[in-house]
Amino acid sequence: MTPLDRLRARLADVGAPLCLGVDPHPDQLPDELPRGVGGVESFARGLIEAAAEHVVAVKINVAFFEAWGSAGWAALERVRADVPAALICVLDAKRGDIGSTAERYAAGLFGTLGADAVTLSPYLGEDAIQPFLDYPDRIIYVLARTSNPSAERLQGLDVGGEPLHLATARWVSETWRDGRVGLVVGATAPVEMERLRAAVPGPAFLVPGVGAQAGDLGAAVRSCHGAWAPGIVSVSRGIAGASAGGDWREAAAAAASELRVRMQEVVLDSEASAAHVAPMGGS
Amino acid sequence: MTPLDRLRARLADVGAPLCLGVDPHPDQLPDELPRGVGGVESFARGLIEAAAEHVVAVKINVAFFEAWGSAGWAALERVRADVPAALICVLDAKRGDIGSTAERYAAGLFGTLGADAVTLSPYLGEDAIQPFLDYPDRIIYVLARTSNPSAERLQGLDVGGEPLHLATARWVSETWRDGRVGLVVGATAPVEMERLRAAVPGPAFLVPGVGAQAGDLGAAVRSCHGAWAPGIVSVSRGIAGASAGGDWREAAAAAASELRVRMQEVVLDSEASAAHVAPMGGS
Repeated sequence: MTPLDRLRARLADVGAPLCLGVDPHPDQLPDELPRGVGGVESFARGLIEAAAEHVVAVKINVAFFEAWGSAGWAALERVRADVPAALICVLDAKRGDIGSTAERYAAGLFGTLGADAVTLSPYLGEDAIQPFLDYPDRIIYVLARTSNPSAERLQGLDVGGEPLHLATARWVSETWRDGRVGLVVGATAPVEMERLRAAVPGPAFLVPGVGAQAGDLGAAVRSCHGAWAPGIVSVSRGIAGASAGGDWREAAAAAASELRVRMQEVVLDSEASAAHVAPMGGS
Repeated sequence: MTPLDRLRARLADVGAPLCLGVDPHPDQLPDELPRGVGGVESFARGLIEAAAEHVVAVKINVAFFEAWGSAGWAALERVRADVPAALICVLDAKRGDIGSTAERYAAGLFGTLGADAVTLSPYLGEDAIQPFLDYPDRIIYVLARTSNPSAERLQGLDVGGEPLHLATARWVSETWRDGRVGLVVGATAPVEMERLRAAVPGPAFLVPGVGAQAGDLGAAVRSCHGAWAPGIVSVSRGIAGASAGGDWREAAAAAASELRVRMQEVVLDSEASAAHVAPMGGS
């Protein structure tokens, strides 16, 4: 089974496109864990274990391990190796470099680390993306509209009557037309997200920004599905920050369970509206 | 002495803005070295040792170490630790992420690795850059116009009558107005480089693409100096690929020496023209 097949199968089981975001900051660890790379690793493992039954994917933010140098990368390797095989493992790396260098980043993330999916930056064009597609069954998500406050500085610049993030999304979807190539679209910009979904119906969206970043969960779930592949909605602090006390594992599991239920409701509502609308509209 | 002071002092000694680019691909190692991470480390060390007396900076491409996972990062740490203190160590990482994540990338590259300078991607705006400036004396180079074939896909898009790479460069130079914040401008696009230099006279340029990528050395040297800080011209394969035989160290040293002399000639010619023009123009 390819990662995309596994994602589809897992989505059918879980009933919600919930992705656990793993971004373990040393200042936001549970009280009982040491403030070093060991604590970061324990927290990441504990979160994945706690949330696993409720999620379709795990998105690990590479920076939070890279901060510790080689010791952090060794921890990342161990954490990645123990992600349950049923879940898609996304390494959120946002790499983007010239072709000969992109080939080495792909060797690291897809080869050495064995990621199912990665996030990539579009600023260098095709050269930065193509070497990752040489790993035939893997998934990539190219940044279109990110979730941060200064996202619009470049991404909102007007390019021939549309914002750069839309031009980027259009370029990606026209260049590859492939379920393996999705887009990162932050939930913190619901208007832009809706416009992107309408203009670029093919690619799956990876949607961060729900929870601590205050993005809209319902809008995120409704817009994340593309015509070519299912999308996923990533929640980090909304699960990881559920409790800093001795009950942090149970609290994270409960938060993931609650998010799953809320997402299932949105999915069911969307399916009901679609079923209701279709006969009325005659199509 | 801050890295910028050290760069100025070193430039006065060397007389040429030559930067050694270290991008050790396992397929391009000297014949005598093993095709693994050990060979990559030995090659990187040997190149730095061979070229050191002729260069002002060493630009290490993180991807070529990251490809090997934690073992590669451990090698990177050792290589970086042994870069001679007189040289500026640039970690070419092209990271770019939301603020809380950028803070962790800065902790890794400036904190754990102790880089003097890094390259960063502009796609996420200020949030991706600012955490690196919290390390007061370090240098950052933000991608403006890269040296790869598909650079213009996004960077050439028309934004209000100018290409995106120029809008990016303008934004960077107007936001920080600081010698610590430079731009990456590839030598493979001399026309764009000249236009960028004229429109954005402040920031220093880090210029890759001379040598194997066929960028113009003279144009690169002439345009790399900014009003706020000295720029540098990075050469990778033009030094690393000088010989694959048993004489690779000597060949790399000779290539670096020759590049230094060619750059010194451009610098002297430029100074002579400036000295000649200045009295004529009365300024």
